[in-house]
Amino acid sequence: MEDKVVLLDFYPSMFGMRARVALAVKDIDCEHREEDLQNKSQLLLESNPVYKQIPVLIHNDKPVCGSFIIVEYIDEVWKDKSPTLLPRDPYQRAQARFLADYIDKKVTETGNWIWCAEGEEKEAGKKGFAELLKHMESELGDKPFFGGNGFGFLDVALITYSPWFQTYETCGNFSIQQDYPKLSSWVKRCLEIDNVSKSLADPDNVYNYYLTLKKKRGL
Amino acid sequence: MEDKVVLLDFYPSMFGMRARVALAVKDIDCEHREEDLQNKSQLLLESNPVYKQIPVLIHNDKPVCGSFIIVEYIDEVWKDKSPTLLPRDPYQRAQARFLADYIDKKVTETGNWIWCAEGEEKEAGKKGFAELLKHMESELGDKPFFGGNGFGFLDVALITYSPWFQTYETCGNFSIQQDYPKLSSWVKRCLEIDNVSKSLADPDNVYNYYLTLKKKRGL
Repeated sequence: MEDKVVLLDFYPSMFGMRARVALAVKDIDCEHREEDLQNKSQLLLESNPVYKQIPVLIHNDKPVCGSFIIVEYIDEVWKDKSPTLLPRDPYQRAQARFLADYIDKKVTETGNWIWCAEGEEKEAGKKGFAELLKHMESELGDKPFFGGNGFGFLDVALITYSPWFQTYETCGNFSIQQDYPKLSSWVKRCLEIDNVSKSLADPDNVYNYYLTLKKKRGL
Repeated sequence: MEDKVVLLDFYPSMFGMRARVALAVKDIDCEHREEDLQNKSQLLLESNPVYKQIPVLIHNDKPVCGSFIIVEYIDEVWKDKSPTLLPRDPYQRAQARFLADYIDKKVTETGNWIWCAEGEEKEAGKKGFAELLKHMESELGDKPFFGGNGFGFLDVALITYSPWFQTYETCGNFSIQQDYPKLSSWVKRCLEIDNVSKSLADPDNVYNYYLTLKKKRGL
């Protein structure tokens, strides 16, 4: 049976991008369906009744929800397609899962304050975001990728925030390139992989999306 | 080399219990170290510098943090020891991971309101908690365990809340046994597994811990 793969997605979403990147680096054919988040499709509502959120990967009519769960699923189903995203060693797998979860928790905790708040709250958001970048730069160390010599799970987890860096930098008035040179070189290395760069949103588009969101929320 | 396994734990914690249950059902020798959460050990602070939280599984001096990450790690390292906790099928694995995550998100969102709030907030908490139990009961269906015929990952995920059921019931004035008969039978089936029941906290102890917490928070 030929695989039928459909991705319910939203272009600027870092979570949607994770599924896109994982599919693209493994060269898996997929039909992308862009969702209108103001008017979600019946398929999205039925495929993810708990959260009604993208991304949903529908593989042979069976839905898989949640960005990291989707990436692990892709890695397990197409285990013979390189690159293998999760490390093979159980301890390294555990570390990758821990840090991936940490990235999202930390951005959720701090990112919104950079965009939406002013004064002390904005500064607290910037401080938390800086802790995340510092922590991840130290985890990267001198390796070319978080996965070692090759692009892997943790690279997928973090690189999909990179199209948002420009928005964070503009709102927070800081420079990731200046403050985190190793992380910036890592972003460049990731973007040199065609299947990664073509799966990521355009930073200007993300910034425009942010402006729309801001207007909608009356900020 | 013989494995050295240490678990940094806290008796009433549903997260700590997950690691205990996973180790026990696979019959893995482990040294338990109870943490005083008001005065955390240096080992805990060093082993989980990001969150400084239990549980931490220290396997041959290497720390693994986060309850689900620990359970997957145990399942991967001791993969030849039965039971295998994660399903083998990638789609079922994805579903188990999704639901495990859903359980914690839903309890975090609703559980505290049952304990700490009154009036409308308490009712909203009870409603959310009821949604969780209803959803999980429908996921269980007529299977003996969430994992099918055998005790598995999702069983580990949910059973460690069962010592807290009495506290939720008392605070929320509802009866899980009456309202969710299939889920109640499932709890009984899990407790018939000696290595599960001996790893769970005593419900009275949990209730006393709740009373202490409540007093400490001035509620």
